[in-house]
Amino acid sequence: MRLYDSSVSGNAYKVRLLLAHLDIPFERIELSVVDRSNRADVIGGKNPALRIPVLELDDGTTLAESNAILMYLAEGTEYLPEGRLERARVLQWLFFEQYDHEPNIAVARFLLHYAEAPDPEVIVAKQEGGRRALAAMETRLAGHNFLVGDGYSVADIALYAYTHAAGEAGFDLAEYPGVAAWCERVAAQPRHILITD
Amino acid sequence: MRLYDSSVSGNAYKVRLLLAHLDIPFERIELSVVDRSNRADVIGGKNPALRIPVLELDDGTTLAESNAILMYLAEGTEYLPEGRLERARVLQWLFFEQYDHEPNIAVARFLLHYAEAPDPEVIVAKQEGGRRALAAMETRLAGHNFLVGDGYSVADIALYAYTHAAGEAGFDLAEYPGVAAWCERVAAQPRHILITD
Repeated sequence: MRLYDSSVSGNAYKVRLLLAHLDIPFERIELSVVDRSNRADVIGGKNPALRIPVLELDDGTTLAESNAILMYLAEGTEYLPEGRLERARVLQWLFFEQYDHEPNIAVARFLLHYAEAPDPEVIVAKQEGGRRALAAMETRLAGHNFLVGDGYSVADIALYAYTHAAGEAGFDLAEYPGVAAWCERVAAQPRHILITD
Repeated sequence: MRLYDSSVSGNAYKVRLLLAHLDIPFERIELSVVDRSNRADVIGGKNPALRIPVLELDDGTTLAESNAILMYLAEGTEYLPEGRLERARVLQWLFFEQYDHEPNIAVARFLLHYAEAPDPEVIVAKQEGGRRALAAMETRLAGHNFLVGDGYSVADIALYAYTHAAGEAGFDLAEYPGVAAWCERVAAQPRHILITD
């Protein structure tokens, strides 16, 4: 498999983390998250939305959207529950991640660390939305070890990617003790890798 | 089943449309998309993100996120392909919808029709993002009848919800002939309902 990747993108890290858990070897093609001028050339035919990660299977088929890639790879493994309702609950968290969490926390992190002359008002608005997303996670994680059921799943992998880096976006996870304890639980899973690995 | 619903929300319409295709009866609980002051009281325990739709199953279990609800309801029906890759492709479109499409087209529609004193610059930015999303759909639909494989699926239902109402958000679908023809194809499916039904 080949992953169109970025070493700083949490969306790409999700996929690398699951591939590490599953012990699947793959080739990494690094793209910049700042200079996007080569995106159409490199991944235009593979993802019309021009976003990474994109996974290319051995037969050349390509799949985009980080959370769709997670669901594809997790099928039939211990990282996706089997029951219909639990699978829907995993998806509920994955859609929450892409709608309420990533657009606030990942974007605040990007503006603070990678953007030139970001608008301070936009950063404040993104941090406000990010606090709501972390509070929603806390309502679950204050009383449970993992996001769905009793075990670690792709829901945890997807939410961990930008949550564990929330400090870089100006959040203090000490305000969300359930979330902070869950981050340590995720990092203690077998074959865990860091975003910088 | 009980649906926490809104008669103007495309996200809620998706679920009603699939329930109509599946001929499943349900109770509708209407919530306002403008006055959200009662959200915590009515759905706080059912969806920490406080967004509709929320589906309550007969045993009282609740499920949130429109596209997760679609996947739950479509499981084992003709509205979700069986193959692993095709299911992942459906999810790719569902995540695209919640990340690139809904936050632009639905939000532009909301600002133009329901918001008090919206910021014109925000509307312009949302319309720009919406045109990119419609262009990505056009790359697929210029040469195919449906978004995934050869048949109508929940990918089409999810994307149709706000695409068919894109005129209300200031878009002209005549600029996207593949998308416009696909809208007619979706509306011609058996047991189709309107957002106003």
